Amino acid sequence: MEQNLEQKLEQAVWAARSLFERGKTAGSSANMSFRHGEKIYITASGSCFGTLVPGDFTAISMAGEPLGERKPSKEWPLHLALFEKSPEIGAVIHTHSTYSVLWSFVPNLPERDCIPDHTPYLKMKLGTVGTVPYEKPGSQALFDAFRQRAGDSDGFLLKNHGPVVPGKDVMDAFYCLEELEESARIAWELFRAGI
Amino acid sequence: MEQNLEQKLEQAVWAARSLFERGKTAGSSANMSFRHGEKIYITASGSCFGTLVPGDFTAISMAGEPLGERKPSKEWPLHLALFEKSPEIGAVIHTHSTYSVLWSFVPNLPERDCIPDHTPYLKMKLGTVGTVPYEKPGSQALFDAFRQRAGDSDGFLLKNHGPVVPGKDVMDAFYCLEELEESARIAWELFRAGI
Amino acid sequence: MEQNLEQKLEQAVWAARSLFERGKTAGSSANMSFRHGEKIYITASGSCFGTLVPGDFTAISMAGEPLGERKPSKEWPLHLALFEKSPEIGAVIHTHSTYSVLWSFVPNLPERDCIPDHTPYLKMKLGTVGTVPYEKPGSQALFDAFRQRAGDSDGFLLKNHGPVVPGKDVMDAFYCLEELEESARIAWELFRAGI
Amino acid sequence: MEQNLEQKLEQAVWAARSLFERGKTAGSSANMSFRHGEKIYITASGSCFGTLVPGDFTAISMAGEPLGERKPSKEWPLHLALFEKSPEIGAVIHTHSTYSVLWSFVPNLPERDCIPDHTPYLKMKLGTVGTVPYEKPGSQALFDAFRQRAGDSDGFLLKNHGPVVPGKDVMDAFYCLEELEESARIAWELFRAGI
Repeated sequence: MEQNLEQKLEQAVWAARSLFERGKTAGSSANMSFRHGEKIYITASGSCFGTLVPGDFTAISMAGEPLGERKPSKEWPLHLALFEKSPEIGAVIHTHSTYSVLWSFVPNLPERDCIPDHTPYLKMKLGTVGTVPYEKPGSQALFDAFRQRAGDSDGFLLKNHGPVVPGKDVMDAFYCLEELEESARIAWELFRAGI
Repeated sequence: MEQNLEQKLEQAVWAARSLFERGKTAGSSANMSFRHGEKIYITASGSCFGTLVPGDFTAISMAGEPLGERKPSKEWPLHLALFEKSPEIGAVIHTHSTYSVLWSFVPNLPERDCIPDHTPYLKMKLGTVGTVPYEKPGSQALFDAFRQRAGDSDGFLLKNHGPVVPGKDVMDAFYCLEELEESARIAWELFRAGI
Repeated sequence: MEQNLEQKLEQAVWAARSLFERGKTAGSSANMSFRHGEKIYITASGSCFGTLVPGDFTAISMAGEPLGERKPSKEWPLHLALFEKSPEIGAVIHTHSTYSVLWSFVPNLPERDCIPDHTPYLKMKLGTVGTVPYEKPGSQALFDAFRQRAGDSDGFLLKNHGPVVPGKDVMDAFYCLEELEESARIAWELFRAGI
Repeated sequence: MEQNLEQKLEQAVWAARSLFERGKTAGSSANMSFRHGEKIYITASGSCFGTLVPGDFTAISMAGEPLGERKPSKEWPLHLALFEKSPEIGAVIHTHSTYSVLWSFVPNLPERDCIPDHTPYLKMKLGTVGTVPYEKPGSQALFDAFRQRAGDSDGFLLKNHGPVVPGKDVMDAFYCLEELEESARIAWELFRAGI
């Protein structure tokens, strides 16, 4: 049974605030979206996960046309590129989580599967995480680079920028992001320790 | 005076949410159980410590038969292995707490007592912590490996996976897990510093 | 449409408590101010971001004269030095955030732009961050040193002390501080890793 | 105007829970006390800062006699040793805060002033912090070692154990502990970085 819009908004607000309160995102840099019928609901430009309310989500069409009054996050093309991959993808979260960002600076990361399997959970929950070369945030060059890689991996790490992860629904995307950030943290600490 | 079921559920929910909110577990990877009469109450499969409510606990028998409507965490055999050790064990918590996981990667850990006594508290509160060799999460091989070690130590560190600790009740298991994670953090930082 | 005083106080209290609860400031060491008409509202001396309430703000004139009953933070001259730069500056936050403080100890920091551009966000959100040489907190020597640098950068890092950032309003200053602390954390971790 | 007992209890509970929620203490290892008239109110044995309520405080006399129904923390002699130093000391907090504990393992710490002055705040707020040699927690040997050092410094770092800090009242002791833990963190990170 699919959730109604109000339920989806409630979960999305919980997930956003939880990420913020536990230090997995900061300031106004994260954005989140979910599918509802033919529309995508995405956080509005300039919204902050720490103060997020249902009214901070605004609808766009699958073609990227704004359907609500507020301006969607300028990073909406990243979200649509994942929703287009499969109808199974029901939500997308993008953050600047610290350890994922740090990991993106490690030299010679494998392009399609950049997080080492120190523990098995990331593969079990999300799958592979591919890198996306650095391009200016919000630029067409970034969106193009992202689309070029979108088919090659399950989740993504934008270099010098942050992770983008899909999920069946908001809670699933939230679990995937949690697992990615935790896996990046383990990878970073072991890399630093030379283990 | 033994607590009633409602009191136990309330404490279990508090402990789970507190672990989540303070970054000692993330996503949906932790599970928790407690004994009540002849039954074991354990968190349901897929539940998240950050949103846990009393209804997320489901009962199983000491033989592992599900007694409630929801599917128990697939890691229930780890929990039962500890409850079988002694009637004094009234609760078990399993998490993927970061520093415990990191410590499990350190080479040449002693099998039966793997956390150094930098401070005396872990021994005073919990006792020894033994390692359990890596096997796939939820696999029979892991459950077998765990049972083989269950009699040798008081708490356990599943390699590349995370801690499993018992307690007289939920709060006691919670204190033991807190002490284990803090001891692992001290051990990790001193190891990194070469002290 | 400008916010009224009550709305500004509400946002300031939210921002202060959020910084405290997420570990970006501790104890009673931070202070915050915002412009309202001809007055500056600033946290009172000895107030703690963790317990802040609207009544902890006290008014001063742009000449630094106390207009309320409570004594303003002794660091009010730092705040006024930024409000005088431009009428566009509507709020100032000063903290002792850990990674910004740590970064201030790194040798040979560029004076006018001391945080490396590992990610593009700090420049996009705040601009340059200049260093201010160490002088005793609350001393005229510090205020003089700060005024000397105030025109050279957008935000500031007081050496061995902490960041001072302006914003159009409290939420904007809050986002700038978040971005500065996160950028300092990334810079510190990469510096430590030799990347 | 001195606070009444209810106000003191309310502040003590706030401070304890805040330390717990922000990761400055864990499990059931911390204890706290304050003076009220001729009595000392101290957290009961086994209490947890994360669940603390006013009823978790129990009274003892300045001679250490229990005056309430609950058993006081076994570390009450550490608290009394500080209250005896001066009538100006109105509260004492003891925790196992991570960075203070880590710093206590650094070789060759100065006995009477063990935290380096990287920033000026600890000295301004609390004063000097002396080390106390390791003895078993709760042992007479520890209490004796503590009394021997109590006159030599303003705050204390029990080796392999944790900080003990006094304050004029609970909030002052809380600010001192916050400053000590933050100073120990800065000291630890700079020590690790070789700065």
